[in-house]
Amino acid sequence: MRVILHSRQIWRSSLSAVNSFCRGFSTTVSNQQRLDISGIYPPIATPFNNDESIAFDKLEENFQKWNKLPFRGYVVQGSNGEYAYLNIEERLEMLRRCVDLADKNKLIMAGSGCESTRDTIMMTEKMAKIGAQVVLVVTPCYYKSGMTNTALINHFTKVADASPVPVILYSVPGNTGIDLSPEVIITLSQHPNIAGLKDSGGDISKLGNLVYRTKDNDFQILAGSAGFLYAGYAVGCVGGVCALANVLGQETCDVETLFKSGKHSEARDLQHRLISPNAHITKLYGVPGLKAAMEMFGYYGGPTRSPLQPLTKQEHDKVKQAFTSTGFLK
Amino acid sequence: MRVILHSRQIWRSSLSAVNSFCRGFSTTVSNQQRLDISGIYPPIATPFNNDESIAFDKLEENFQKWNKLPFRGYVVQGSNGEYAYLNIEERLEMLRRCVDLADKNKLIMAGSGCESTRDTIMMTEKMAKIGAQVVLVVTPCYYKSGMTNTALINHFTKVADASPVPVILYSVPGNTGIDLSPEVIITLSQHPNIAGLKDSGGDISKLGNLVYRTKDNDFQILAGSAGFLYAGYAVGCVGGVCALANVLGQETCDVETLFKSGKHSEARDLQHRLISPNAHITKLYGVPGLKAAMEMFGYYGGPTRSPLQPLTKQEHDKVKQAFTSTGFLK
Amino acid sequence: MRVILHSRQIWRSSLSAVNSFCRGFSTTVSNQQRLDISGIYPPIATPFNNDESIAFDKLEENFQKWNKLPFRGYVVQGSNGEYAYLNIEERLEMLRRCVDLADKNKLIMAGSGCESTRDTIMMTEKMAKIGAQVVLVVTPCYYKSGMTNTALINHFTKVADASPVPVILYSVPGNTGIDLSPEVIITLSQHPNIAGLKDSGGDISKLGNLVYRTKDNDFQILAGSAGFLYAGYAVGCVGGVCALANVLGQETCDVETLFKSGKHSEARDLQHRLISPNAHITKLYGVPGLKAAMEMFGYYGGPTRSPLQPLTKQEHDKVKQAFTSTGFLK
Amino acid sequence: MRVILHSRQIWRSSLSAVNSFCRGFSTTVSNQQRLDISGIYPPIATPFNNDESIAFDKLEENFQKWNKLPFRGYVVQGSNGEYAYLNIEERLEMLRRCVDLADKNKLIMAGSGCESTRDTIMMTEKMAKIGAQVVLVVTPCYYKSGMTNTALINHFTKVADASPVPVILYSVPGNTGIDLSPEVIITLSQHPNIAGLKDSGGDISKLGNLVYRTKDNDFQILAGSAGFLYAGYAVGCVGGVCALANVLGQETCDVETLFKSGKHSEARDLQHRLISPNAHITKLYGVPGLKAAMEMFGYYGGPTRSPLQPLTKQEHDKVKQAFTSTGFLK
Repeated sequence: MRVILHSRQIWRSSLSAVNSFCRGFSTTVSNQQRLDISGIYPPIATPFNNDESIAFDKLEENFQKWNKLPFRGYVVQGSNGEYAYLNIEERLEMLRRCVDLADKNKLIMAGSGCESTRDTIMMTEKMAKIGAQVVLVVTPCYYKSGMTNTALINHFTKVADASPVPVILYSVPGNTGIDLSPEVIITLSQHPNIAGLKDSGGDISKLGNLVYRTKDNDFQILAGSAGFLYAGYAVGCVGGVCALANVLGQETCDVETLFKSGKHSEARDLQHRLISPNAHITKLYGVPGLKAAMEMFGYYGGPTRSPLQPLTKQEHDKVKQAFTSTGFLK
Repeated sequence: MRVILHSRQIWRSSLSAVNSFCRGFSTTVSNQQRLDISGIYPPIATPFNNDESIAFDKLEENFQKWNKLPFRGYVVQGSNGEYAYLNIEERLEMLRRCVDLADKNKLIMAGSGCESTRDTIMMTEKMAKIGAQVVLVVTPCYYKSGMTNTALINHFTKVADASPVPVILYSVPGNTGIDLSPEVIITLSQHPNIAGLKDSGGDISKLGNLVYRTKDNDFQILAGSAGFLYAGYAVGCVGGVCALANVLGQETCDVETLFKSGKHSEARDLQHRLISPNAHITKLYGVPGLKAAMEMFGYYGGPTRSPLQPLTKQEHDKVKQAFTSTGFLK
Repeated sequence: MRVILHSRQIWRSSLSAVNSFCRGFSTTVSNQQRLDISGIYPPIATPFNNDESIAFDKLEENFQKWNKLPFRGYVVQGSNGEYAYLNIEERLEMLRRCVDLADKNKLIMAGSGCESTRDTIMMTEKMAKIGAQVVLVVTPCYYKSGMTNTALINHFTKVADASPVPVILYSVPGNTGIDLSPEVIITLSQHPNIAGLKDSGGDISKLGNLVYRTKDNDFQILAGSAGFLYAGYAVGCVGGVCALANVLGQETCDVETLFKSGKHSEARDLQHRLISPNAHITKLYGVPGLKAAMEMFGYYGGPTRSPLQPLTKQEHDKVKQAFTSTGFLK
Repeated sequence: MRVILHSRQIWRSSLSAVNSFCRGFSTTVSNQQRLDISGIYPPIATPFNNDESIAFDKLEENFQKWNKLPFRGYVVQGSNGEYAYLNIEERLEMLRRCVDLADKNKLIMAGSGCESTRDTIMMTEKMAKIGAQVVLVVTPCYYKSGMTNTALINHFTKVADASPVPVILYSVPGNTGIDLSPEVIITLSQHPNIAGLKDSGGDISKLGNLVYRTKDNDFQILAGSAGFLYAGYAVGCVGGVCALANVLGQETCDVETLFKSGKHSEARDLQHRLISPNAHITKLYGVPGLKAAMEMFGYYGGPTRSPLQPLTKQEHDKVKQAFTSTGFLK
């Protein structure tokens, strides 16, 4: 039905659009100072009470623990924040609380993506006003066949033109069915207000190529999952937005530290242990798996909103097993 | 990435959930009277001005033409209504106007689907209050791996339990990446407040099987595209929600009339001519194609909201050609 | 990964290739006499002994039953014939036996497709010599990204140019991952030695459109599955190659008879009952399901070749249930 | 249609099969000595003359160049060898020549995969006799829905039981549509005659996890593409089978050397430059792209067999541009 890929045809047909677009930017960004976004971010889960209202008290408890960790900042309303299940007011209120609860030295990256360009701009402006220092803008995805390279370039350009704060592109094909193409990303990397990319697709060749092709633009790429965090660093990513950091925050930051200090084999060994736990709280069991794991590590997880379902007993055991077999849980 | 299908494994794993669920309904619906939804519906386009505000005056002009046609009713905020690009207030206001503008003998079917169950229930209740006589509820789709059969059954059941008006299931895998499975549909067909299904996937074997398997439940299936409308009738569908009816309303209704009067070869011949025009305003060029075609036939089409892009000159010509080569345009 | 579809880009990029190609045929086929291939064909299963050798004696037993049925002919080495598991000599010997065993008034359609053009031509020539009256040529599929419209048009043209007997195109995306596009089919329908198409994809809009677009070329389309046989006839197909005809041969032929005599509601009702049994021996359980069902109806089914696996007890019960619940088995 | 992934359901349903299987091996392989397969291999292209016959003289010329490079060995009849277009005799003859032409210190890894288990065993035995020191066995793929974990485990086990030489599993979903699952690989890693895996899918999390989960079995993983070669080494792969090594043999080997000597940033920088050239000869333009590039670097490329098509002038220029823009060509 649809069609994540780089077939020859798509590659070819997109080039003219991309080329004609590139001339549009009169200056390159190479001499500009980008906001440094390097580091590790948990895309924080939104805690709910049993009646599905937001549990702000539990949010505060979680932040007390997270604030002690060497995160670069927090992503509020990434996919793991169940942002798709929050209404506009809730999205803004949730951000307001996070801005308040987060340590002042942490960067607040807020997910402001909506399906329409106008809603995304509106949300971006409001979030910046509340205190988001950077916004994470997911690809629109409902009208899949209409999300051509041209459409996506136009969308992100309009949002970046309007945004008071830097924009990070967000590609998460597992949820959206849209994999932001290298052509779109490279084109957009020239925009002075687009500072980077969060890529959850995990195609490591694509990530390496993007680092290489955008290196003159001071463009920063964040690995979108702890499953390929070390490999991401190895090919030139500057950090990661990792669901697993909600649970194993220190260990996720340790991957960065080990990499940066040149301890490659230690980084690899830690990475190895993280993959299966990470898979259980992302592609295998999603947000319900993440919240279950948070409970295992002393955080408040709580229920998801419906239609996401709680784990069965058997699924819960598998999540636990993924953390025990790798030595993170007794 | 994901995964529209009925693999063996999915089939198997879903059965226990389905079976255990079925026991939940204490009464069958076989003796109940369902709302008759048979007939043809245009999923009406939302007209916009050049500044992307809703052009209610143009909506009125379009309704003056549509009201003269033998439609069973109107779908307000199907995918072709760009509902994903309307905010809550716009969705409700748009419905209010349509209720007002539609001939009183037309059924108003309103798209009330949202990502979360709670938002869907809220929207459903508000739309029913405004005048929707039946609601069309699309599958949630953002957390794709979480949209198991169990999750979808729970979602639609909760919505149907709460809804003041009958619910129609809506499966549109081209947009959502989720194809509602036969098991889910058959299970839900037993719910007294779920009256039918709009299926835009177009798997004619699936549709025939669903007609057969749900025939004791007075469950009604609508073809979700003019491309398989006659074939849909042939296997037992009771009508269609067809983007093409925005443009070729009479001709779309003629398929129904020819079928019902047993003129199968005429129905087939008309169907043949409709397929290519229909493809150009749906899977090939989507809503921008639909709106371009509306202009060709004297309706107001106007722009889409961004990020959907207007047709290029070449694309526009192809749409026109699809209608001229089949004799619908001079 | 891949990419069955008609995205806009693919549509566009293919047109120039197709257009330039079309000029290549100096004469149209409209005045030529095509071989009439209309009717129902079982794609016969290849019977194996427990040691995986071909059980020619069992083949003879099966033919004794099949020959009593009003089939138009037999497909030897369609996908259900496990042709991919036969070596060259076996493919030819199997055909030789079938030519011998089939009633003389039956058409023999032999699957001669190979991955390379040269092997396909070689196989086609040998099969024609042995007695195939028409060949069924599957799309090559291993180098998926290389199977562009241009490559496929060239392949089938070379094969048809060389073939002593008419060629039928064969699109079976469930196995090959390649869905022969309308552009390719319409272009090839102009070749004087390409008589038709077997389409197992089941997109009924595509089939209707192909009937319409190729009607001046006397091009004949066969439904590739009993699941959409009646709908296929309704939109203009002239017959079907149906795995189910191995098992329910009379009933499959009855769909044709009912359709042709204008008994649409009876045809629909019979079609309804056939869908689930058909699904169990095709997409759900494949050849192992087909062979299990053959045993239930007095044919020799026997084992498949490895790596295909025999049904589990539970799967076997489900196949049986599909035939009993629809009244075909007691 | 099909379904490369690890959905929850598939994961779950496969576990019981896997677990029951594991008990089947009476001894672990941890104390056994595996053949060391570490290092870089070109999957050599099969050179053809213009009439599509094999150009053995050109093969010899190519080997004279390749033999000077620090390859660990050669893969004969990987996907890039167009093995799918060679008949049985050609496959064996081609191997015979390669055994003869390769330097005696090079390992010969021969692709012996066929669709059926019996043909694969036959081919494996013949290739071992000719001189293959290890065989690369691709996943069967035609009957996709039948290629369950159980079927694949049985297939590879039977082949490994019968093979006189070690077996390497080969997963190449871009061609086959089948991504060998971690469960299957981990299970098979316990077989004493299965020495490793070539994975061309490129999911770096999967590769890291496999290294971790099979480390007690002395199981060796080869990156299946130069696009993720350095990342592959970083997560624990022991080498690579890289189409690009046909063209840039020294540079591909340099990635290994840099990695092994701890020069991570140099390895990364070289890797960055290799990604785009590699993409142009693999996923973008496939074997025709590879052969065109070989010509640019003094090797004999020549035509592919049909239905693969030669590059257009424009495509040829893009391939050239990929190598010039990265500094590999003047």
